[in-house]
Amino acid sequence: MKKNNRNGNLISDISFDKLNLPYDLKKLNYSQCEKLCENVREMLIETVSNNGGHLSSNLGTVELTLALHRVFKSPEDKIIFDVGHQAYTHKILTGRYNEFKTLRKKDGVSGFCKPCESVHDPVITGHSSTSVSSAFGIASAMKINGSDNFAVAVVGDGAFTGGMAYEGLNNAGKSDVNLIVVLNINEMSISKNVGGMAKYLSTMRYKDTYIKTKGAVERTLNKVPVIGEPIKNTLRSSKNAFKNFVLSTTIFEELGFDFVGPIDGHDLKDLEDGFRAAKSKRRPVVVAVNTVKGKGYAPAEENPGEFHGVGSFEIQTGNPDVVSADSFSSVFGNELVEFAKSDDRICAVTAAMKYGTGLQYFAKAFPERFFDVGIAEEHAATFCGGLAVMGKIPVFAVYSTFMQRCYDQLIHDLSIGNVHAVFGVDRAGIVGDDGETHNGIFDVSMLTSVPNTKIYSPSDYEELRHCLYNAVYKDKGIVAVRYPRGNSQVVNTTPKTDYYYENNNNKCLVVTYGRLYNNVKTAVDNVKNVDLLKLVNIFPISDEVKSIISKYETIIFFEECYYNGSVSQKISAEFNNVKSYAINDYVKQMSIAEAYDYLGFSVEKLEKTIKEYI
Amino acid sequence: MKKNNRNGNLISDISFDKLNLPYDLKKLNYSQCEKLCENVREMLIETVSNNGGHLSSNLGTVELTLALHRVFKSPEDKIIFDVGHQAYTHKILTGRYNEFKTLRKKDGVSGFCKPCESVHDPVITGHSSTSVSSAFGIASAMKINGSDNFAVAVVGDGAFTGGMAYEGLNNAGKSDVNLIVVLNINEMSISKNVGGMAKYLSTMRYKDTYIKTKGAVERTLNKVPVIGEPIKNTLRSSKNAFKNFVLSTTIFEELGFDFVGPIDGHDLKDLEDGFRAAKSKRRPVVVAVNTVKGKGYAPAEENPGEFHGVGSFEIQTGNPDVVSADSFSSVFGNELVEFAKSDDRICAVTAAMKYGTGLQYFAKAFPERFFDVGIAEEHAATFCGGLAVMGKIPVFAVYSTFMQRCYDQLIHDLSIGNVHAVFGVDRAGIVGDDGETHNGIFDVSMLTSVPNTKIYSPSDYEELRHCLYNAVYKDKGIVAVRYPRGNSQVVNTTPKTDYYYENNNNKCLVVTYGRLYNNVKTAVDNVKNVDLLKLVNIFPISDEVKSIISKYETIIFFEECYYNGSVSQKISAEFNNVKSYAINDYVKQMSIAEAYDYLGFSVEKLEKTIKEYI
Repeated sequence: MKKNNRNGNLISDISFDKLNLPYDLKKLNYSQCEKLCENVREMLIETVSNNGGHLSSNLGTVELTLALHRVFKSPEDKIIFDVGHQAYTHKILTGRYNEFKTLRKKDGVSGFCKPCESVHDPVITGHSSTSVSSAFGIASAMKINGSDNFAVAVVGDGAFTGGMAYEGLNNAGKSDVNLIVVLNINEMSISKNVGGMAKYLSTMRYKDTYIKTKGAVERTLNKVPVIGEPIKNTLRSSKNAFKNFVLSTTIFEELGFDFVGPIDGHDLKDLEDGFRAAKSKRRPVVVAVNTVKGKGYAPAEENPGEFHGVGSFEIQTGNPDVVSADSFSSVFGNELVEFAKSDDRICAVTAAMKYGTGLQYFAKAFPERFFDVGIAEEHAATFCGGLAVMGKIPVFAVYSTFMQRCYDQLIHDLSIGNVHAVFGVDRAGIVGDDGETHNGIFDVSMLTSVPNTKIYSPSDYEELRHCLYNAVYKDKGIVAVRYPRGNSQVVNTTPKTDYYYENNNNKCLVVTYGRLYNNVKTAVDNVKNVDLLKLVNIFPISDEVKSIISKYETIIFFEECYYNGSVSQKISAEFNNVKSYAINDYVKQMSIAEAYDYLGFSVEKLEKTIKEYI
Repeated sequence: MKKNNRNGNLISDISFDKLNLPYDLKKLNYSQCEKLCENVREMLIETVSNNGGHLSSNLGTVELTLALHRVFKSPEDKIIFDVGHQAYTHKILTGRYNEFKTLRKKDGVSGFCKPCESVHDPVITGHSSTSVSSAFGIASAMKINGSDNFAVAVVGDGAFTGGMAYEGLNNAGKSDVNLIVVLNINEMSISKNVGGMAKYLSTMRYKDTYIKTKGAVERTLNKVPVIGEPIKNTLRSSKNAFKNFVLSTTIFEELGFDFVGPIDGHDLKDLEDGFRAAKSKRRPVVVAVNTVKGKGYAPAEENPGEFHGVGSFEIQTGNPDVVSADSFSSVFGNELVEFAKSDDRICAVTAAMKYGTGLQYFAKAFPERFFDVGIAEEHAATFCGGLAVMGKIPVFAVYSTFMQRCYDQLIHDLSIGNVHAVFGVDRAGIVGDDGETHNGIFDVSMLTSVPNTKIYSPSDYEELRHCLYNAVYKDKGIVAVRYPRGNSQVVNTTPKTDYYYENNNNKCLVVTYGRLYNNVKTAVDNVKNVDLLKLVNIFPISDEVKSIISKYETIIFFEECYYNGSVSQKISAEFNNVKSYAINDYVKQMSIAEAYDYLGFSVEKLEKTIKEYI
């Protein structure tokens, strides 16, 4: 981006206040567009620096997004941003300019895409690799309706490590719908070296464009006397393998897509030409676009690591932060290193979350036993099964919300055979500003419905260490140790792996587990006249715990997970007079403290609830 | 296969009784091998014709399996058959010769692979597309251990429509482990036209082998004077796109694998040469093998449809039968056609189960609104979301056990946005001889843990029709209609969509739903002195139902699903004195009647249980 606009007099014409977005974008000349991109970048930098979020990925897609909105017509054409974390420019350009400063705040603009927020967000995105499937569904419906509109999926190279993206491509490739997949190659995944596809896309990025090269082959053959022309004609007319070799080149073409690109993702005119070419085909097309992380913000471009945590960049969420040393994740990661030092059976597995799960310590210490499998939780769980049957002890560190992806693999590849595999279930419970797509509130329901599973929910670092030890060395089958995002607020000198019980012979017992214990303990201490039971091994519920519970007239159970399938629901099924306070619906974006208050889990509200029963 | 063996005198030498399997296989000469294959085929035909199971797919992999056991050394080398339904020859050749006649019977040989059955089955297989992940885990462990053994995944082309297979390939392609993926191209998927990959593999099958063609390119260029040699050298030495075009050809090579094949899957020597070539590479290799369904059984070869139901072949289970007209599946499929006749919003989706789910009627009547997405339940659910946001009413017919694959998509792509999508949950409950990998006992736990979900469980055809009507036209969000495998045993003249209640003012109420209602009704009628409540809308539990239940001193709840997360557990959480009889662990292969008896759901055992409470 040029820092000085060549047409300063046009700047006022394109101020956000005067534009009817996104419709007026088509009326701008390239010079005005250039200025608009500058404005957008300023807004991105300012907002993200205030509110947190994804900076470099959004700086990289400014021109890409503008070009999409100039070539396509949203909302009639549907533009879907995979994961949604690179959709900030899209939000700004589709009427969310004024609200954008509320990004990721309570009641503010979401960090992901949501139909309830704008008619220009066709579907919810938050988890990876869904956009091709959504867009193909939309494009198929358009075709049935006789519409000539387009569905566009914008997907980063990282999301292409997820099998869902492949399933969508495989299914769509044989169709004739107006589906355009914009493959944003920004090498987010490549630095992580998460697989063959990343390497393949890297090759694509750095070579001559395929289109040009294909032309070059023909041009070369044109110059070959006598035999060049026949070879060329053979290549062109042949429907056999020759054609695949030379005239059909990319994986995407093999899967049935047309292919355009790669295009310079910061050249607006090239982008528009490419998108128009894709539109003209009126069938599934992949458009490959090369973008630069942090583009247009000099410090970020020069040193993207500093501004986007490239060294620590998490593909799946795009969260830029390396997890803090003072966090459950880091404690987990470091403790696993300790185990692995004296036990070469320990293997660590992550689905593109090395830094977020605290496994960077393990990766550095034991690279040969560390596996980053890409955004591929299904594969990860089954891969763990393979390690385990060979005598290894696999430990898969995975965010609660993403573990939802491997429910069938938990059952089929681990539980039925009672295979021993340990899950570090990170970000369990409320995660805060990422909102409803990322809260980890279903892992308890999910895991307790899988036979041969044990679950720990430590409430502080020392308990996490002890639970992890049990999970690795004492237990069998699937063992999950679930812990929250962020840090522990207490130091516990009496860590437990079963339960912690304060018995003062009251008639009312308060039960809880995990992070929520801290608030509950305070509330119980304040209210007095109630006993307290903290579960650490939360499932299966032990006979000892049942014995304790059976003694009370009233049991109040506070639980930071979805109610249906929860531990408190299971306790309620066995005992009368259990009052369960769990989560009954999705929790929108807000800080964890705000969410606790909303859910009745603040100390004040906990006290109020407890008092109702004594 | 030749019908007459050229070395008749050797036949007795290779009788199964005298062979130490699989070890002695390496000692046989090719003539003996040929005879062995004949013997195996005879056994396959005889056993499958008696017990049911997969005939043509297993007839197609006889030489392939023998070659694997001659080149590799099981159990040190680990051979994993994806899905496991093509592993019959493997079972016969690894010491399960005598037991093979018990195939798919109670306490007999499983129709799939199980470590508990043989040391030669490294992992459980039953669901599709898991073998690459398992094998890569095993191969990675071998590498850590310093072992030079091999992990071999045998995968059919159908399984390659599943994203998990891609995730595994993508992850393994960058590694240097001893992983061999044998891609069995038998066009099981191709007749179904389930996607770009199938088409791609079909091309591979019918063209000259890639290896030969690559050679041909070079030979052609050798004949081109002056410029041919430079072009060839350029192609060879270049690491740029040219090389990808001509010298690196397959998708698998793009993903980082070496590639061997395609090989004639019925030429034992070629197969062994190919596998040895793959071994010699000592890194990930894909070996493509072309096999013929029904090979060696003349009637099946000539008319595979008749003997393997090719027209109706289900990729995912390999079950040969088109679902009977007298079945829940057919009633579902036909009713959906009726709806679709007058409503062009109705779309039908299947994950490679057109015939098994009764959707063949819909596919024929409304091809433009019918979508077979491949073995891709994740994609299917999200694809439904895309259809729905465009005003369509997607109905995804899916087996309960395979729906486990789309738990996250249910949450992320449907539930959070309260998108209306209907699920025909087929094979809910016990399925019988396919055993624990295929019983549909987790859908209730899974679906009830997803907000914005409603579940119907009709117990006969007429109720199924009414429930489907409600699901499509009256309800919102995710609506599941779950029904069992097979046919209905009753004709109901008073179909319900909420509940059916027989109130005789007894103190004890028996509650149940679905197929199990038939036995429970008989038992209640026999026992007398208990009231009866059949749920049809099983979740959420309505206030009316709660009101009924609240009147009773004792509630006995019989439920054909896993207990944790069940409806009866939820009822128990709200009411005292609920006695729940659900399923507490995996149920092995046996007939449905045997399973009902085992679970206490036979009429006799139900009566006995009920009598305990009155």
